Amino acid sequence: MAKQKKTAITPTRDENYPEWYQQVVRAAELAENSDVRGCMVIKPWGYALWENIQRGLDKMFKDTGHVNAYFPIFIPKSYLEKEAEHVEGFAKECAVVTHHRLEQGEDGKLHPAGELEEPLIVRPTSETIIGATYAKWVESYRDLPILINQWANVVRWEMRTRLFLRTAEFLWQEGHTAHETEAEAWEETRKMLEVYKTFAEEFMAMPVLTGEKTAGERFPGAVSTLCIEAMMQDRKALQAGTSHFLGQNFAKASGIQYSNRDGGRDYAWTTSWGVSTRLIGGMIMTHGDDDGMIMPPRLAPSHVVILPIIRNEEDREAILAYCNEIAANLRKQRFHEREVEVVVDSRDINAGEKGWGWVKKGIPVRAEVGPRDMANNSVFMARRDTGEKQGIDKDAFVDGIVATLEDIQQGLLQRALAHRAENTREIDSYEEFVQFFTPENKERPEAHGGFAMSHWCDGSECEDKINDELSVTIRTVPFDRAEGGAGACICCGKPSSGRVVFAKSY
Amino acid sequence: MAKQKKTAITPTRDENYPEWYQQVVRAAELAENSDVRGCMVIKPWGYALWENIQRGLDKMFKDTGHVNAYFPIFIPKSYLEKEAEHVEGFAKECAVVTHHRLEQGEDGKLHPAGELEEPLIVRPTSETIIGATYAKWVESYRDLPILINQWANVVRWEMRTRLFLRTAEFLWQEGHTAHETEAEAWEETRKMLEVYKTFAEEFMAMPVLTGEKTAGERFPGAVSTLCIEAMMQDRKALQAGTSHFLGQNFAKASGIQYSNRDGGRDYAWTTSWGVSTRLIGGMIMTHGDDDGMIMPPRLAPSHVVILPIIRNEEDREAILAYCNEIAANLRKQRFHEREVEVVVDSRDINAGEKGWGWVKKGIPVRAEVGPRDMANNSVFMARRDTGEKQGIDKDAFVDGIVATLEDIQQGLLQRALAHRAENTREIDSYEEFVQFFTPENKERPEAHGGFAMSHWCDGSECEDKINDELSVTIRTVPFDRAEGGAGACICCGKPSSGRVVFAKSY
Repeated sequence: MAKQKKTAITPTRDENYPEWYQQVVRAAELAENSDVRGCMVIKPWGYALWENIQRGLDKMFKDTGHVNAYFPIFIPKSYLEKEAEHVEGFAKECAVVTHHRLEQGEDGKLHPAGELEEPLIVRPTSETIIGATYAKWVESYRDLPILINQWANVVRWEMRTRLFLRTAEFLWQEGHTAHETEAEAWEETRKMLEVYKTFAEEFMAMPVLTGEKTAGERFPGAVSTLCIEAMMQDRKALQAGTSHFLGQNFAKASGIQYSNRDGGRDYAWTTSWGVSTRLIGGMIMTHGDDDGMIMPPRLAPSHVVILPIIRNEEDREAILAYCNEIAANLRKQRFHEREVEVVVDSRDINAGEKGWGWVKKGIPVRAEVGPRDMANNSVFMARRDTGEKQGIDKDAFVDGIVATLEDIQQGLLQRALAHRAENTREIDSYEEFVQFFTPENKERPEAHGGFAMSHWCDGSECEDKINDELSVTIRTVPFDRAEGGAGACICCGKPSSGRVVFAKSY
Repeated sequence: MAKQKKTAITPTRDENYPEWYQQVVRAAELAENSDVRGCMVIKPWGYALWENIQRGLDKMFKDTGHVNAYFPIFIPKSYLEKEAEHVEGFAKECAVVTHHRLEQGEDGKLHPAGELEEPLIVRPTSETIIGATYAKWVESYRDLPILINQWANVVRWEMRTRLFLRTAEFLWQEGHTAHETEAEAWEETRKMLEVYKTFAEEFMAMPVLTGEKTAGERFPGAVSTLCIEAMMQDRKALQAGTSHFLGQNFAKASGIQYSNRDGGRDYAWTTSWGVSTRLIGGMIMTHGDDDGMIMPPRLAPSHVVILPIIRNEEDREAILAYCNEIAANLRKQRFHEREVEVVVDSRDINAGEKGWGWVKKGIPVRAEVGPRDMANNSVFMARRDTGEKQGIDKDAFVDGIVATLEDIQQGLLQRALAHRAENTREIDSYEEFVQFFTPENKERPEAHGGFAMSHWCDGSECEDKINDELSVTIRTVPFDRAEGGAGACICCGKPSSGRVVFAKSY
């Protein structure tokens, strides 16, 4: 066995993928667990990434005609109960506020006091509270459509949590729209899915499949849930965003009624759509390697770090001036509507430790500058994605930075596309299907699983059976399902109108 | 009595100021009460204003070396209890989460279930939960300072709420910093107060006084609370932002300890500082008039609305093209690092109603364009601040827009400064002091009150007596208090080192 390369992250992805993930989150200083069960602290480097995600999405929402607003964090219990499937979906995991003060008891300690007449739920999602508001705003068809998005925190009391992927509190955006017609609401549902797909691929460099969820995987209360689904490096699927066509379900529950063009009264058609801090987990598992995080340049909090290497104190001033000049020239360039963002890390700590810190954080480009580089009018540049390192003339470095960042951005997407292609297979026999998802798969001992494109009869029995036996679910039913041709259900052999995407998932 | 001008807001400020305020919030479509007690819905026009406030402040925070992060919404009860004054300050008004699911009871209804071992408080402020995190992050003086800000929602269960000014849930930012030395922490406390003052005056066009709060008005647990204090049009004071020097109180409560330069262990010195959606209330009450809101241009969601006046359908296309061309040319200009933001409101509704809608929303500049304006190559422009209207050549309008906006911005600040100067008085006798704050003041029947600059002995007895008798409090003790010279306490006659600011307040 060849001597293994030393990696910054222990264990490696092959050794223990879930633990590798936790270690990358820690080493990249993205987030950490707090003392409050299931709630995370998003650290500055992770939050800056979230701010860039927000900026990118927010612009796309506004470009498609949406505006932002803010609705209460609390939902009266009776509101949640208005939609039967909805409350059933969320009742088991919600934070309930029952009192509005603390009072000293006879034991000298503080206890909850001032019991509320009606308990309040910390929003797990806002369809019901926003619906109650829309019901007041909408009188006539002239008041439609309402196209609003909210950036907010939500709470779902998950029992098993994992940083970014599943936390009790998380940050997200939730779009809530109301329309005059069914067709318009459907158009909105699909349009926002397309926005998510574009964002995932162009900003996150994370390819996604789109399609519809099966009835069993639908958002509680929705008529249809559309989703974007990505493949992680361990070949599991990650649901990265959803767009729900809610029909008139929530409009009826909340009383969003309007006078139509014929003078009658109709219920509005509504949609909702959201992505969350989970996207950060998706980026880590799409791009990260055994040395830590790799940031796609379009979302990276900073693009370039310049590392002055000062061996003799007398060089300090000159080297720092040289570094700052390069930084200033880099900052004059623009990469996708952002200034090229540069850190000159002149902290007086061990140079190796400092460099590795930035590797682990995943900054796209590092540039070391020592006395010799300065003498040669050059920098020693390293790309995080390929690991490629080279001495390069400083002007060429500055002039080429935008192309370099674009190359990294595209390279990451291509690598993820290739990974997905390698691990996607059309499977038509149940035996092969089982083998594909079984760890002891001899053919690919460390690489079982992926996306199985297989036929399905549309029956929930087959879906449940496969889930029970293999912990494999239907991730999405592609919109163009029929184009690949009909076939026989992988499970029961009954007719299928086309292949769907099976995978293990987060 | 002269016939009164018809106003868009009923009642007027003079008739009923508190009710005028509510009506402006409603008419300007800034916010509304939700069905959840004390929680507001921030409507798109109000939220866009908040986004501009965020953008302006966030840049100032980053320029002063701060980064953003995010901490849990929940605070374990025991954390809040760690600082005795702190918990006393917040225990009486906090939302308490006691259960983590809803379960169907024998009555068939859903009831809180899954009782938590320890109740969680929805953060009213985050010193204790953030302190617990900093305690983990800080080991040595090399880890200091920590300079972090958080944008978040907080909940304080206020009994009497008023939109923006006092709500159970509100949006804010809270900076939390930890330092090696007392002097550094003091410097930070003052620096952030200065940031708030600059923001209030330069962005909000709202002049503020700065100084220190008295012991009785301090943030619970702080050693000292600094504040910015503004005068509203009804001459009451509004505390618009605070910056707290926390000494080592919270560091001791949370265990934020570090190895100092001499190898010993010290507690860090911390600060916290915040402003909230209350600022929006301050802007309404500083600038609004009897026709509604007036937006200071630097924060206005849009700067200009163009209103096509279409009397004949055959003109529609030409007029809209003319309006869109003007809009495109306006958008090429930049006003304080933002593109000039323009709405072309071509909605097919009553022209008067449409125009008044924008007046009430407070957009800085309106430009009407009818067939005659188009024929003359002009627009009919109206300024919201002065009410001034004029026909103006379209190129002159476009070329002059930045100067116009700047003039409005400065004009609003000057008007507010003049109002404050008119209603600030040095008062040295208690009789005059009482008269100043008494509604039956003959001298100024509809204009009693304001800022009384009077001497104070530093005794809480005098402070309490004045509050009990007149509902007047010490808003701030100016930093340069001594410069105006010593004197005798307005209440007891004992020596005073200088004047302080007395006023009624929100």
